[in-house]
Amino acid sequence: MYMRSLATFDASGKHLRSGIRATAPHGPAHALDRWLATLIQRTIDAAHVRLRLWDGFTAYERPSDPIGELIIHDRRTLIGLVVNPDVAFGEAYMDGGLDVRGSLERVLEALFRATLAGPPSLRERLATAAALPNTLAASRRNAHEHYDLGNNFYALWLDRDLVYTCAYFETPSMSLDQAQRAKLDLICRKLRLRAGETVIEAGCGWGALAIHMARGYGVRVKAFNISREQLTYARQWAARERLTSRVEFIEDDYRNVSGRFDVFVSVGMLEHVGRRHFQTLGETLRRTLRRDGGRGLLHFIGRDNPRPVSAWIRRRIFPGGYTPTLAEVTSLVLGPAGMSVFDVENLRLHYAQTLAHWADRFAAAAHEVRAAYGESFRRAWELYLAGSQASFATGWMQLFQIVFVPAESAPPSWTRRDRYEASTGAAA
Amino acid sequence: MYMRSLATFDASGKHLRSGIRATAPHGPAHALDRWLATLIQRTIDAAHVRLRLWDGFTAYERPSDPIGELIIHDRRTLIGLVVNPDVAFGEAYMDGGLDVRGSLERVLEALFRATLAGPPSLRERLATAAALPNTLAASRRNAHEHYDLGNNFYALWLDRDLVYTCAYFETPSMSLDQAQRAKLDLICRKLRLRAGETVIEAGCGWGALAIHMARGYGVRVKAFNISREQLTYARQWAARERLTSRVEFIEDDYRNVSGRFDVFVSVGMLEHVGRRHFQTLGETLRRTLRRDGGRGLLHFIGRDNPRPVSAWIRRRIFPGGYTPTLAEVTSLVLGPAGMSVFDVENLRLHYAQTLAHWADRFAAAAHEVRAAYGESFRRAWELYLAGSQASFATGWMQLFQIVFVPAESAPPSWTRRDRYEASTGAAA
Repeated sequence: MYMRSLATFDASGKHLRSGIRATAPHGPAHALDRWLATLIQRTIDAAHVRLRLWDGFTAYERPSDPIGELIIHDRRTLIGLVVNPDVAFGEAYMDGGLDVRGSLERVLEALFRATLAGPPSLRERLATAAALPNTLAASRRNAHEHYDLGNNFYALWLDRDLVYTCAYFETPSMSLDQAQRAKLDLICRKLRLRAGETVIEAGCGWGALAIHMARGYGVRVKAFNISREQLTYARQWAARERLTSRVEFIEDDYRNVSGRFDVFVSVGMLEHVGRRHFQTLGETLRRTLRRDGGRGLLHFIGRDNPRPVSAWIRRRIFPGGYTPTLAEVTSLVLGPAGMSVFDVENLRLHYAQTLAHWADRFAAAAHEVRAAYGESFRRAWELYLAGSQASFATGWMQLFQIVFVPAESAPPSWTRRDRYEASTGAAA
Repeated sequence: MYMRSLATFDASGKHLRSGIRATAPHGPAHALDRWLATLIQRTIDAAHVRLRLWDGFTAYERPSDPIGELIIHDRRTLIGLVVNPDVAFGEAYMDGGLDVRGSLERVLEALFRATLAGPPSLRERLATAAALPNTLAASRRNAHEHYDLGNNFYALWLDRDLVYTCAYFETPSMSLDQAQRAKLDLICRKLRLRAGETVIEAGCGWGALAIHMARGYGVRVKAFNISREQLTYARQWAARERLTSRVEFIEDDYRNVSGRFDVFVSVGMLEHVGRRHFQTLGETLRRTLRRDGGRGLLHFIGRDNPRPVSAWIRRRIFPGGYTPTLAEVTSLVLGPAGMSVFDVENLRLHYAQTLAHWADRFAAAAHEVRAAYGESFRRAWELYLAGSQASFATGWMQLFQIVFVPAESAPPSWTRRDRYEASTGAAA
């Protein structure tokens, strides 16, 4: 998951209104307002979501009750939703021009479902084609804006190990802490880590996977990250665990890695790489992974068909990101690198569940977040978490784990059976 | 797996010499012969395979013993191997111009390994681009030439259920009969079949999967095939099992299927479809699979990167076939059809094991095959089985099982665990 710091928006000159507006009455809606509201109502009618204007007007006429309401507080928001709905929705939610009555997540889910079957719009296709290049310097900047928001902020609502990627709920009732440990361990078992092996981790976050691998499986890990604050945290953690001889946290771009390793693993980084750099990632794999007996795992947010990241997310959250299809990753990264796909698992419902946990915890921390970062920041995150949950719940977004091997290497296991027979031994 | 009847080659006007030549001495090799032999030796040297001419000449100079020898019996074969090695190797093996000393499978495996890392040649790329269209009429003809070779022929060396696709060895020591049943059951468990559901099977062979699904899981199956002899066998089998009310074997192209179904399954058919018809397959999926709760499985021979089927296989075995990449299947078939990939498993080592069983059983039936079809036919099949085994053992070819769902449908299971905890209940 990625989130650019909203705290930088003002400095970057984008149009963030400085606070949440007073929701003073706006006067009655005019005939033109009502006509625009009717237009919008038609596009969301199939989702059973009701649009309501500041004076109470609604064009919703279905016999059944709506599952929720969008409340539009002013004309500017109304016009924005007609002209540029992708961006306007998020902007208006952030600054309070739009409110949602009912469950934010359920309303977004219904809106996603209603549009899921359609092909990408022309605007979406142009945006996909024009995805900006992601240079080393730019990705360093993006990562700083995003992850250096402050460890304390993430500690408010992530699990105890600060794992900011999709968890694995062996049973749906598992706690988030358990499910994140189970995810780390699932990855280790899929990779069949053996004591003494060498592992590269590209994009290591706060270090939970690197530490889990070294502690539970006795491997030696070189973990790369470009967020200094995360690395500081990870190094202190490794020191507390007395694992500094086996885990090295390196402040550098993964593309600069050198040497040959048994295992390559990357969890939640591919989305940051940008499609234009898939070839470089492939070259990195080819250069660093042992041809005989090597294996790797990529865990990333993906799509069924090529589509750009939402315009609002692109504008406000993460300019350099791209969520690729399985075909893009296998044909642009793995195939040219001489890698065979061994196993793919789609965990999208696990991500919806993860996001539900995050959203609950984030809501519980609303007071602290508001006090430290302001209400508009809090609302942006609230929307982002609910929208992401809805995306994964509806199948609008996917979460892929790919296990791959150099074509000359035997796959790491004969069947999947023993991965699932054993309980998650190292997950305790 | 596919194999066009070699018995039709003479009738189709292709250049099959009518029998195995007498291997009378050819006189000493000339200087030119030796120079050509040296050229070829260089290209296979990395594989530790020795080339030997009819008079005993060899240019092999490695200190270590070779793992096997190619014996060239005449000049025509020698020249063929230089000019058009892909085709000439198979042709010469068939008609006895070339023999292999040592394990045929091991020699082929070494040759595959030595060339695995290279990119496709220009000739290969042209052949991929020019893959012939596969009309309904042509695929009907291809299937007839291939599968109507005679049930008795396949019964000589397949398992008791006549399953002519990759088996699933839960343990490597399983018998072929057990492993084929385990494969059928793995597919049912991946699809989470429930009693009363409706299933389309596209390309049902002799009916083993359709019957297993109906008998073990209580589903209703419409199974499509265009090989009449296979269908006759399948219908008789279903009658013996008293399953005719639940399994319908239909002599038609799967593309003509109508109605809506809970499940779509196709095992070993995608290789016959041809890439130009992937879109039609996708449209068939979109048209026939229930959007809410539907799911499907494709089991097919695939590649890491786009490559044509071997020129000899294309010429002698299966003109209309194409072994696609995972990216081609997901981006040309599944994505456009609105399907999400849920699970991919690569079973290539299981196919190598299956082929090893087939090759052993085929060798044990050599006398019957020779008596009924001739020695050149027997040698072609011997080469085909050994070459396929080597392809899967080395990673030159892959075997993918993809489970997919309409994007709006929930995946068929929360995790994979219970698929593997339960023993193969219905496989007895």
